[in-house]
Amino acid sequence: MQTIYRFLIHFFILSTLLMNSINADTLIGSQAILDSADDADWRTPEDKNLLYMQHAKGQVIFELAPAFAPEVIANIRQLVTQGYFDGLAIIRVQDNYVVQWGDSLAGKDGARSLGEAKTELEPEFFRERAGLDIVPLDSRDAYAEEVGFVDGFPVASDGKRAWLTHCYGMLGVGRDYAFNSGNGAELYVVTGHAPRHLDRNVTLIGRVIAGVETLSSLPRGTGFLGFYEDEKEHVRISSIRFGDDIPETQRVSLKVLRTDSRTFQDYVQSRTHRKESWFADPAGRIEICNVQIPVKELE
Amino acid sequence: MQTIYRFLIHFFILSTLLMNSINADTLIGSQAILDSADDADWRTPEDKNLLYMQHAKGQVIFELAPAFAPEVIANIRQLVTQGYFDGLAIIRVQDNYVVQWGDSLAGKDGARSLGEAKTELEPEFFRERAGLDIVPLDSRDAYAEEVGFVDGFPVASDGKRAWLTHCYGMLGVGRDYAFNSGNGAELYVVTGHAPRHLDRNVTLIGRVIAGVETLSSLPRGTGFLGFYEDEKEHVRISSIRFGDDIPETQRVSLKVLRTDSRTFQDYVQSRTHRKESWFADPAGRIEICNVQIPVKELE
Repeated sequence: MQTIYRFLIHFFILSTLLMNSINADTLIGSQAILDSADDADWRTPEDKNLLYMQHAKGQVIFELAPAFAPEVIANIRQLVTQGYFDGLAIIRVQDNYVVQWGDSLAGKDGARSLGEAKTELEPEFFRERAGLDIVPLDSRDAYAEEVGFVDGFPVASDGKRAWLTHCYGMLGVGRDYAFNSGNGAELYVVTGHAPRHLDRNVTLIGRVIAGVETLSSLPRGTGFLGFYEDEKEHVRISSIRFGDDIPETQRVSLKVLRTDSRTFQDYVQSRTHRKESWFADPAGRIEICNVQIPVKELE
Repeated sequence: MQTIYRFLIHFFILSTLLMNSINADTLIGSQAILDSADDADWRTPEDKNLLYMQHAKGQVIFELAPAFAPEVIANIRQLVTQGYFDGLAIIRVQDNYVVQWGDSLAGKDGARSLGEAKTELEPEFFRERAGLDIVPLDSRDAYAEEVGFVDGFPVASDGKRAWLTHCYGMLGVGRDYAFNSGNGAELYVVTGHAPRHLDRNVTLIGRVIAGVETLSSLPRGTGFLGFYEDEKEHVRISSIRFGDDIPETQRVSLKVLRTDSRTFQDYVQSRTHRKESWFADPAGRIEICNVQIPVKELE
């Protein structure tokens, strides 16, 4: 069985010169830890928590985090069931920030109906910390007192509240001025340096586990806030479906490293204290959004 | 005179619904501060510190920081004078990490000669802190004891040493295992979440001040480390020139906000304490790589 690591280890070498040596050296690092992980260290995301998005440039698969945003995820399920997103488009690509999709006519004549879905929802910008088992990350975070991981998602907390953090690849719910206006009909993915000032101001609902590069490499919008100025630039979405609502043959077998495993701890340590000989001065520190949670695909 | 802000303010709104209100609300924030800045708050980068790169997908302009890497910048000037980069290509685009260019044949038969330029150079991974006027940023940084700005560049320090930080858009010098192998013939730009573990391990020499989106939107390489697997994917570089070596008519009039100005302090404060009504819970904190140093173009 061939294993393809979908996550991008931030390999340390920046030259083409010593490709063979690179491979050898890498094997004493993070890759070796993952290669020797037990099967039990990897979990299979539940199909009901997966969203498959087909767009003109490829496929993106998201894992949702209902422990953090149950209501808006339920609303998105209602929208998806109605085929709400099918035929809509990616309408905004702002460099070093977000890729966003939804109805370009929202709020105007010709806007698509939300049908049975709610138009307003109590915000889920954060939840109670109580009841969460946060695997701590030893990091001096610029934005939060406590950071760590819950079931494969980056999380921050102030002791009472906990929230998902705006790391690269996180999936969020666009909204207007009203805090209850984020109903899930407009979604965005972070495709730049983590805009952590959005934490607790928007509802995050999950993260990309495959295909983020099909979003991050899209042409940047030249309009205000990175919106495409011409409808012809829109990147059409042919469908968004939940994993439990598509034929088994179309499902992708992805495994996510358990963030509560010893292997994950070893992995984080290897990313913190780089022992590869390339490094002159290993940081000995790591920031939450620089911990890329490993995902692999079984083929 | 029309002013185009090239830097991308991370506007806060994520929806298309209220575009008119957005404009109004934005004007009480960072944009208003920049709009009301004195001319003296903006500096014109010296032509000798600008690099213009023309590639198949557009133009990128870099401002170099000789206070941090005088030797490698001098070596790059030697390479540029020889036309070393002209006709070479962007050969690596790794998602959420770097875009890199140089000679795909480096170290192999047919590699381009470095001519009069040095092949080895003492690394400039950091410099003495002494002699630097660091405008401090009040931020709890994951990687360094002190962070701030020097003449428009993000900087970190441990009290004795100081170094440029690997924020989005920073320009660095690829190297092999040998610390002195970074001669400037292979360069990269950060196009993802700041890989700060590279700080003090690679020489940074400047940052993109225009055109980063022409790099960050390139198709991702599907090879190891994001290298393009097929030469046909290479993005050709027609030329790299210093600003003082191109005709005046081809120079772009860019202004960079002075990081030692009161206006910059006000700008950072406005980005830290978001007063726009959209925010439910402003962070009150900011991280060094989330401070995007404003650049504007005069036309």
